[in-house]
Amino acid sequence: MAAAINHDIRLRQRPTGMPVPGDFALTESPVPTPGPGQVLVRNLYMSVDPYMRGRMTDGPSYVAPFQIGEVLQGGAVGRVMASREGPFAEGDYVLSMYGWRDWFVSGGEGLMKIDVAARPADLDEDAWLRAHLGALGMPGLTAYVGLTKFGDLKADDRVLVSAAAGAVGSVACQIARNTGCNIVVGIAGTEEKCAWLRDALSLSGAIDYREARDLAAAIGDAMPGGIDLYFDNVGGHMLEAALENMRDGGRIAECGMISRYNSTEGAAAPRNLIKIVSKRLTVKGFIVSDHFDLMERFTRDMTGWIADGKMVWRETIYHGLAHAPEALIALFEGLNFGKMLVRLVED
Amino acid sequence: MAAAINHDIRLRQRPTGMPVPGDFALTESPVPTPGPGQVLVRNLYMSVDPYMRGRMTDGPSYVAPFQIGEVLQGGAVGRVMASREGPFAEGDYVLSMYGWRDWFVSGGEGLMKIDVAARPADLDEDAWLRAHLGALGMPGLTAYVGLTKFGDLKADDRVLVSAAAGAVGSVACQIARNTGCNIVVGIAGTEEKCAWLRDALSLSGAIDYREARDLAAAIGDAMPGGIDLYFDNVGGHMLEAALENMRDGGRIAECGMISRYNSTEGAAAPRNLIKIVSKRLTVKGFIVSDHFDLMERFTRDMTGWIADGKMVWRETIYHGLAHAPEALIALFEGLNFGKMLVRLVED
Repeated sequence: MAAAINHDIRLRQRPTGMPVPGDFALTESPVPTPGPGQVLVRNLYMSVDPYMRGRMTDGPSYVAPFQIGEVLQGGAVGRVMASREGPFAEGDYVLSMYGWRDWFVSGGEGLMKIDVAARPADLDEDAWLRAHLGALGMPGLTAYVGLTKFGDLKADDRVLVSAAAGAVGSVACQIARNTGCNIVVGIAGTEEKCAWLRDALSLSGAIDYREARDLAAAIGDAMPGGIDLYFDNVGGHMLEAALENMRDGGRIAECGMISRYNSTEGAAAPRNLIKIVSKRLTVKGFIVSDHFDLMERFTRDMTGWIADGKMVWRETIYHGLAHAPEALIALFEGLNFGKMLVRLVED
Repeated sequence: MAAAINHDIRLRQRPTGMPVPGDFALTESPVPTPGPGQVLVRNLYMSVDPYMRGRMTDGPSYVAPFQIGEVLQGGAVGRVMASREGPFAEGDYVLSMYGWRDWFVSGGEGLMKIDVAARPADLDEDAWLRAHLGALGMPGLTAYVGLTKFGDLKADDRVLVSAAAGAVGSVACQIARNTGCNIVVGIAGTEEKCAWLRDALSLSGAIDYREARDLAAAIGDAMPGGIDLYFDNVGGHMLEAALENMRDGGRIAECGMISRYNSTEGAAAPRNLIKIVSKRLTVKGFIVSDHFDLMERFTRDMTGWIADGKMVWRETIYHGLAHAPEALIALFEGLNFGKMLVRLVED
């Protein structure tokens, strides 16, 4: 598992529109040596998330943009390979924001130990580690915060979720279902994903947006009573179609707008924002990193759901750090089914 | 003042885009005769409001659309000319939703008596009656509800108001100022209106959107600290420019989108709705008629402000029922300065 050479991925230039492989540079360096009080970590998996695209653009935002020539950052799970009286012991597994690299050293700031003994019996160690980048990690917390704190989720809500087969969306669907909502509909981009939403997640409905000629009408068919709560990951035309179907007094938890992240032109949609007025809607944007205070409650709830068999997920795994940029691009093309990950060690 | 002939305005056909005079029909009929328990009312002023455009379009909304061939409706103040043991006495002044006609009979449902004796010393009877269609009426309540209930107005908020020289906007600006906000900026469509916002309303700033080359930059200049609360009457590009300047955690009270009401094309939507997420904004739409329970508190506050000289307003008055459609069209052209009214009796 050890290697004498470290690799990382740096931002070579800021993408224009959809990122291309040439926007990234794979860089080689020696595996770093831990100093006193530090640990040396070998990353096992790194996360690829839509929000990363925002940090590749310069300009004011809620986190500083990535700098040209600097190593990218993101969620990762790794194993402590050496410790010079550092905060973790050799063999410990840790969650960090030091993705996009094979190896790193750290004094422990921002690292969290993953307790592999706490996993449910039917999850192997590797799957448990990966879950900390998905359902049990930031994507799961995002769905939890968005629905419960910003969406004011109630058991009788009729809930629509876009990008429903993705890491955040699939958890959002199941949190709504686990809360008692009978009408939970997911929107996804292939019939295979829709079948999974219906069968594995037991949603009341699933809509393949690539096949629907009239998305607003398709939502209306799946939710004839309208939408109480829309968990939006997509924006644009999907938000427009949802607005058409919102019930009076409905709520929109605005998590992201992946349809816009690579856009270089003016938006064509939504054309019907006036529905916010006429239907007296409340739209709330949120950023998960503001709400780490909810992590403990979330972890308790989520661990319980997983143990009870009430939370399932899918993963799409690319292999090798060199393929991480492709994985990010594939995410924007909707090629992921569930959480997009990159495995950084050989099988 | 009496006339043997009554006139009303009916919807001849549903407007496509901007209404044109031919969409309306001026119809003649005998002045109606009150039945037992009814009053006969001569309207003095009628209100022309942007929301009326929505009711001219067929389709589901929060109020039923106007029907082709039926008399239009809207706010009006009138005088009781005869009472057959009706709910009001001859000579009483009443507020009703029976605008767009010179005369009507009523059993009193939905009518409200206006107490002319309650007016401040410096307002004549006529101005007091008109105020019940403006600052003291539905437009004023709209501003009050939007800011206090949906915008969560606080004394240290930096407030931006669009259509700020209009009936609702000008009251919104002054409620913010009267609440203690030091930074209140209004957007309007002429330099004359802007001068009035600065001088008569003592706002900290006013922006002529027709002159501003870059509206977002102009807002940034007027409010370098950003916007805590945006009271939106316009939507479209103005909403886009406001979104650029919102502070993190800011609030948008979504009152209306007059820029869109006559649009027949796909709207050039705000291209930056993602700011709702990245700035963690809350956007709340509202309809004033849901909040008549606040009328008493509003009337107390507003009467106090008027008596204390802390509320001023302007009016644009067309003369004669036949010109009411022109007045409505002029409203969408921004030709009104303050409340748009039609005087229905000769001077």
